[in-house]
Amino acid sequence: MVNRQWLLARRPEGHAQVSDLELRANAQDESPLAPGEIEVRSLLFLCAPTMRNWMEPPGRSLYPSATLGAPMLAPSGGRIIRSAHPDWPIGADITYFGSWQDVQRLCPDEAGPGRVLPGLSLVDAMGRFGLNPLTAYFGLLRVGVPKQGETLLVSGAAGSVGSVVAQIGRLKGCRVVGIAGGPDKCRWLKDECGVDIAIDYKAAGFDAVLYAACPDGIDIFFDNVGGATLDAAVDRMNKFGRIVLCGQIAGYDGAATAGPRNMMRLVYGSIRMQGFLMGDYADEVPQAVAELRAWAEAGDLAYRDDIRQGFDALPASFLSLFDGTNQGTLLVMTDPAAASPA
Amino acid sequence: MVNRQWLLARRPEGHAQVSDLELRANAQDESPLAPGEIEVRSLLFLCAPTMRNWMEPPGRSLYPSATLGAPMLAPSGGRIIRSAHPDWPIGADITYFGSWQDVQRLCPDEAGPGRVLPGLSLVDAMGRFGLNPLTAYFGLLRVGVPKQGETLLVSGAAGSVGSVVAQIGRLKGCRVVGIAGGPDKCRWLKDECGVDIAIDYKAAGFDAVLYAACPDGIDIFFDNVGGATLDAAVDRMNKFGRIVLCGQIAGYDGAATAGPRNMMRLVYGSIRMQGFLMGDYADEVPQAVAELRAWAEAGDLAYRDDIRQGFDALPASFLSLFDGTNQGTLLVMTDPAAASPA
Repeated sequence: MVNRQWLLARRPEGHAQVSDLELRANAQDESPLAPGEIEVRSLLFLCAPTMRNWMEPPGRSLYPSATLGAPMLAPSGGRIIRSAHPDWPIGADITYFGSWQDVQRLCPDEAGPGRVLPGLSLVDAMGRFGLNPLTAYFGLLRVGVPKQGETLLVSGAAGSVGSVVAQIGRLKGCRVVGIAGGPDKCRWLKDECGVDIAIDYKAAGFDAVLYAACPDGIDIFFDNVGGATLDAAVDRMNKFGRIVLCGQIAGYDGAATAGPRNMMRLVYGSIRMQGFLMGDYADEVPQAVAELRAWAEAGDLAYRDDIRQGFDALPASFLSLFDGTNQGTLLVMTDPAAASPA
Repeated sequence: MVNRQWLLARRPEGHAQVSDLELRANAQDESPLAPGEIEVRSLLFLCAPTMRNWMEPPGRSLYPSATLGAPMLAPSGGRIIRSAHPDWPIGADITYFGSWQDVQRLCPDEAGPGRVLPGLSLVDAMGRFGLNPLTAYFGLLRVGVPKQGETLLVSGAAGSVGSVVAQIGRLKGCRVVGIAGGPDKCRWLKDECGVDIAIDYKAAGFDAVLYAACPDGIDIFFDNVGGATLDAAVDRMNKFGRIVLCGQIAGYDGAATAGPRNMMRLVYGSIRMQGFLMGDYADEVPQAVAELRAWAEAGDLAYRDDIRQGFDALPASFLSLFDGTNQGTLLVMTDPAAASPA
């Protein structure tokens, strides 16, 4: 058997390129598993903008760093094909922090994979109820702490995190202002996600448009973008406002984005700016998935995914996150079994 | 009777100057008080670096802005000399958000002055147990939330806020690293305040010295300074670290300081950066003063003040905050009665 791998061949300068990765086909390791190990065949990979960070050298920002010459790191879904761990049987579907290869070994007691809930396919477990919506859920509800009647501003609002943030905000009674790029995404936000106002960041006079959209100031800013957007938002944050730091797409070409210039507004406004990761709330995932499913079944949670096919196209599919063409959660399916419950 | 006033004559460009203020002597308003009003004679003014912000035009940072041609705003202490409010009797000492003038009228129901606790002089109420130590107390305990064994970094650590932060951190079992300017301040921090390490920000290779002083990273950064100090600290913040934004001395010449560049560390580190004002915790002040008094009486809280004399010297005294010569809480006494309980 062959184990295909996409290796990180070089660290990108600026925009990542397909040529930064290299396809290799190695013989699969058929040696016996050590006790406690499992072997998983990958069926599905999630692509997220922050993976561009993971292509950087190990450094000063606490994110994982892919090793040069090793498979690119990725949120992964697969099916257990060998097991030397009594709690993780052959045939079970799991999600895990893996890498771009057909087969890999994990130690569940160390690596902490997740069991796919009964009745869910990997596509659902990693898409509609996966990392992105859960990031939205915990970021907004645990860090942002929305209250009825507050103004919630979301950047990257048409993205797979932002659109869920906007809709949960709406369900919690917030006035929701979404920022997105281009009229199509803005229309989808208004018509399908039910935001109160959608702003095109590419439009002229963005700051003035933003301020006009938030006449009572901003109580919560859920920021996926950073940079100039964060700067503009800080100037309108209300007393006791919360800024949820989820990502910094503005800086995903390897350039760090700067924090806001108006630091004194954070001081005098008693404003809280806070980063988080979905994994901080791992214990609460089952309850969060249940709530997301209930909203989805009630028709309250518009969702789009963008499912690409094939292992060979992994780098090209990933890079579509950065050219504005991708709409919805970007999943790369390497085996059709990912679409059905195990 | 004459009412002397120091008026804000022009808004400073860069460093504030004595010539930005103008001394005026007006006739005192002797008309009757309206119901609910009181009249207070000022005895003591607190000078704090953030007052430089208050000289800026009303703007985008939520701080109060002194009116051009009106008396300069200041945390003030005085004695009630006329009263048309049953709860605020003549002869009582109060602290209030006032301005640089001999006499002023207040509406206690709107302006929220504070009653000086029995047995305390205004010098104690505004100094050892006043705005600065209370800012330290609430900022560290309510925003920073120190835990035994954590590393606490304090910038401006020899200042009247920072030195109390450092000592409360020590009392709570933190390993305390203080940043100050010059060997004298560093020695005082080590010898009198009991910090574990004092770092001179003027020393060569500051970042390397800072990192060597925090080998286990930084759990809490109490920041009075902003700018490059904040930038350096963020690179060493631990997962779930807290950055308490108290002030931005680096930007007190009217220039805004920028936020940290390493925003992705805030995201992946689940780091909370939060501004606050002492007034956010107004309800808890009596309990906080009691705790500060208990620590002071046990000899656990080193304190210095820097009491200047005279109304005429107010601007010059205030400006000593910015040339590095001031050490300790800077109070300007305009009447010796401020040194004794009412």
